[in-house]
Order: sequence, then structure tokens, then C-alpha cells
Amino acid sequence: MNQAIVAVDVMGGDHSPEVVVEGIRKAVQLDKDLRVIAVGLPGAIASLEGVDRVQCVGASEVIAMDEHPANAIRSKKDSSIVVGCKLVKSGEAGGFFSAGSTGAAMAAATLGIGRIKGVTRPVLAAVLPGVPKPVILGDIGANADCKPEYLVQFAVMMQAYAVAALGIADPTVRLLNIGEEDSKGSVFAQEVFGLLKESVPHFDGNVEGKEILTSGTDVIVTDGFTGNVALKTLEGTSKVVLQQVKGALTVNLFSRLCALPLVGQVKKLKAEMDPDQFGGAPLLGVKGVVVIGHGSSNATAIANGIRATATAIRNELTKKISSALPQA
Amino acid sequence: MNQAIVAVDVMGGDHSPEVVVEGIRKAVQLDKDLRVIAVGLPGAIASLEGVDRVQCVGASEVIAMDEHPANAIRSKKDSSIVVGCKLVKSGEAGGFFSAGSTGAAMAAATLGIGRIKGVTRPVLAAVLPGVPKPVILGDIGANADCKPEYLVQFAVMMQAYAVAALGIADPTVRLLNIGEEDSKGSVFAQEVFGLLKESVPHFDGNVEGKEILTSGTDVIVTDGFTGNVALKTLEGTSKVVLQQVKGALTVNLFSRLCALPLVGQVKKLKAEMDPDQFGGAPLLGVKGVVVIGHGSSNATAIANGIRATATAIRNELTKKISSALPQA
Repeated sequence: MNQAIVAVDVMGGDHSPEVVVEGIRKAVQLDKDLRVIAVGLPGAIASLEGVDRVQCVGASEVIAMDEHPANAIRSKKDSSIVVGCKLVKSGEAGGFFSAGSTGAAMAAATLGIGRIKGVTRPVLAAVLPGVPKPVILGDIGANADCKPEYLVQFAVMMQAYAVAALGIADPTVRLLNIGEEDSKGSVFAQEVFGLLKESVPHFDGNVEGKEILTSGTDVIVTDGFTGNVALKTLEGTSKVVLQQVKGALTVNLFSRLCALPLVGQVKKLKAEMDPDQFGGAPLLGVKGVVVIGHGSSNATAIANGIRATATAIRNELTKKISSALPQA
Repeated sequence: MNQAIVAVDVMGGDHSPEVVVEGIRKAVQLDKDLRVIAVGLPGAIASLEGVDRVQCVGASEVIAMDEHPANAIRSKKDSSIVVGCKLVKSGEAGGFFSAGSTGAAMAAATLGIGRIKGVTRPVLAAVLPGVPKPVILGDIGANADCKPEYLVQFAVMMQAYAVAALGIADPTVRLLNIGEEDSKGSVFAQEVFGLLKESVPHFDGNVEGKEILTSGTDVIVTDGFTGNVALKTLEGTSKVVLQQVKGALTVNLFSRLCALPLVGQVKKLKAEMDPDQFGGAPLLGVKGVVVIGHGSSNATAIANGIRATATAIRNELTKKISSALPQA
């Protein structure tokens, strides 16, 4: 494999810096052509000094999960998130991974790295554990208010990610809508449908919420409000159902005994359905690969996130997005 | 209990007329003060002739699930859905239940029965199996395009249903949004937030998709596009996860043997999580109680739907909605 350099926010996530440090170690162990630039408070990155293919860069500030994103990146210019994005801007790293504040990482990347020429709005996407194959859903919250033409760019950028990160040839796209027929939906959705049909290759029509995981399409496009509601509904429902199953299986001593040998299977299932296995949410449309991990990521999820970032760098995601966009 | 008269569309649903006929029999058996007017093709309702407290009314046409709603109700004036709504309009029935085409039932009710004075748009709501208690979500698809002020009426009408159908005192309301903080969301959501705060009693702020089932609120209000996506995402995810669980539990002979005594528990869980247990989706804002059941309803779901309609009639849903609306 050719080399990839990923800047990693050591301060990001609910269990930082420990799990991030462990995730970095895992990632460089698994990928011998990967180089990581670990960015964080001196005390947090100290244990990574001297680790093969890991370079440490100090940052004197940390942006907390609950800080106002735009204000935080303005006032904390030496925070790990801002410094990490600067390394991408300068070309020292090909991409940036953070499990910290999604809002701050999006703001720092958009303002600090800058958009690819022709991109109106970057899109935040999620790779979901679809059946039988993963599906990329976006926007999941970068743009609460969208114009129809934004969604055309979102679709094209997510297709580029499907190619670069998941190795899918000719990825198909569907529009999240409230009916399958072409004419269904809000005025907004109908307008988007027309634009997608006109200008996006492999557009396969509408998909309803009930088929997000099972439609078999590669990409599902929607606005950031609807996408965020859909993604969180999906996560919340999955959690509730699995808890209910656990409750049902352990309702009395007899069922508890019967269920004992099955615990491993249900745990495995939970891991399979965990979006973290795909490494986090890519922010598409900025000049560099930026992937944002879940705040609750464990070391394996962090390592997957770093490796997903490296894969997208190697497969020239930015160049793919740039050439897929209609030239303005 | 005081008497209630419910008109029932015998032709509605994927398994009509058989399961609807069976559902009607169940409902009148369980509720001795219930009277049903069974509406359908003569052959379909024949077996109900002579059943105690069931009156049969013939209809010569049937609206199929895939017909264009507005066109169908215009051209099929003697269809079971149109005739059923006429019985409410004339006062012969207090309410109407159908497991047929949602679009046609909504159109027939809105045009044929008419709106309660002051109601701008009727709202279609769903009663979901929340934890630890049910939650009413709407609009789930009657209005794909909404103005902010519609949602204030939706909230008030769903509160009235919570009181009349579920017996909840002072039901709380939340706005489905993409963040918990007051200032979050799209321009539309922020505007709705302001209106709800100003004019709806027991408004408790925002709720995210991940907490639809678990927030503990009684009513969740949203526009018909977002609500439809959320509801269907919830149904689809629940189905996928339960299928995955089934797959995990039966992955090999050993786990299959262990899982055998647990099948009953999982089936019970599936039934508990089935929205049909609450009897279907009420269309709120028309002059009469109209409840629309799932097309896939079995006889129990049909019986529950008829009984939910009767409960709302007895508790004077229409009067409650009327007096809850701010007088224009």
C-alpha cells in the first residue's frame, strides 16, 4: 500500500486521551504504511513519543463537547481540533480524524481547511450497517436548512466516498422520501427528485424510512434535518429493541439459563450493527479527508476511524470528489 | 359504559374482508355497549347479518390500496370508505375505522366529514409503544408541507387525543428536533419552538430521534415529512434488529436448542412493540373520530382499532379538540 499520513485528535471522545492513544497504536500496528500525527496536550501524547511511525504535535487547548462550535474554534486557535485541521491545510497530513465535538470539527475543517472548488456545502455522512451491505446516509446534520441543489452535490460526494472508502463501483443513489413513487413527497423532495434524475448517474428513485437499512442502494441522500432525525431514530430504536430482547431473554431463571449460551451471539450482533465498525462519519467537500468518530468510541473504533481516513486518502477521495462535481 | 357507534370499513386491509369481519365480532364481544355499522360489498358483510349489535350497510365499490386517493374518492362515491365517512357526517355513527388506503381514508374524512371549526389541517398521529409508556407521534404523513403554525394545532389536537383515548391528564409535548437545546434546529424548527413555547401548555422542549421511544413525553410533534420518515425508520429498524436477533439465536444447532424455550418471549416482545396494539392512527381535526389501521392488521388489531375509536367517541374527542383550539 502507498503511504498515508493521518492527523489524529488525541483529545477527542468521551474516553480520551487513553482510548485514542490505544487506537493509534492499534492502527499503526495493523497498517505498516500508515503514519500518524498525534495532536494533543503534551501530557496526553507523551506516551506516544518514540512509537514507530507516530509523530507527536503539541496543542495547548482542548475544545469540550458542549462548547459552541464556531466560538470555540475562533477562541481556541491552539486546540487539538484546530491544529489537526491546520496540518491538513498545510499538506503535512492527508486527512484528520477526531472523535471530539462534531460541530467544532466540522467548523474547523470547513473554515480551516477550506472547501473543494465548486462545493457549496460540505456534507456529513454516516456509513450504516445495512443488510446485506453497508449504506451511506447523508446529510446527517451539517446542514439543517438545504436548497434542493445542495442535495445533488451531497449525492455526488457520497458516491465518491463509496468508491474511495468502500471500493464500490458505480454506486447507486436514492432519495429519502415519504413514498416510493416518483411523484411523492414534499415540494422540496419533489424538486430534489427532478434534479437528481436530471444530473446524477445511477439515481434509483425514492427510498422510504423503513428501507434505509435494507434497500440495497449504496447511497441515500437527504437534507441535514431529516437525515439527523432518521439516523438518531435508527440508533435509538436499535438500542431499545436490543434492550427489550435482553429483558425478554432474562425474564426468569429458566429463560436466563437458556439464554446464557446466546449472550455471545447477541453481543456479536450488537458489534455488527455498530456504525463505529465503519470508522465514523466523513465530512465530504473539504480539501482533505476528514472523518469524525462517535464520542463513545472505544480503541477499536478509533483504530477503524484512522484506517478509514487512510483508505480514503490513498484512494484520492478529494480528487474524486473534485472531478465528479459538474464544473461550474 | 355509554354507547358508542362505530362505522367499520369491511373492505379495508390486506386480509379483508375475513379478518375485518372477525375483528368486528371480537370487538362487539369484548364491549357490550359497542355498536358497529359494517360497511362493504354485500357478499363481504353477509356473514355479519344478524350478529348482535352489528348493522350491515352495503357499498358497491372498493378503493384499492394503490389508487390515487383524491381521484378514487371522487369517482367511487359508493365505496366503503366514502359511505363509512358519510355515516359519520350524518351522525349515524360517532366514528369510522378503516384499515384500507390511508390516503383515501384521509381524503374522504377531510372532504366528506369536514374539519372541526378552526382547524387548518387535520393531523395523522401514531401511538407508539414507548418505554415505559406509549407516545403519540404526529404528523406522520398527512401534511408533507407544513407552516409553523400548523404544528401548534397538531400538538393541541394530539394532546386532546392523549386525554380522550389514553386517559392521560395534562399530556406533555415535545418538538422533534436535531438537538436538545432550545436554539437548535432548522429555521422552521426554531420558529415552531417559539410558537409552541408561547401557546401550548406542558410544552417540554425538543426531543431528538434517538429518544422518540424513551423520552417519557406523551406527545411528539413534527411536520408530516419528518414524522413519516421517523415512523418508518423506527418500524424498519425494529424489524431488521428482530430479524438479526432471530438469526443470531439460530446460527447453529446448539444455539437453536438453547433458543427454543425463548421463542415465546421474543414473540411476546414483538407483539408488545407492535403499534397495532394501540389500534391504529387517528386522523385528528375532522368532525368525528376517524382511526386508520395498518393494512397488515390481523383480527386483534382490527378489534383494537374499533375499540380505540369507541373510546375516543365516548370521551368526546371532537368536543375536546374543539375547546382546546384557540378560538379564532
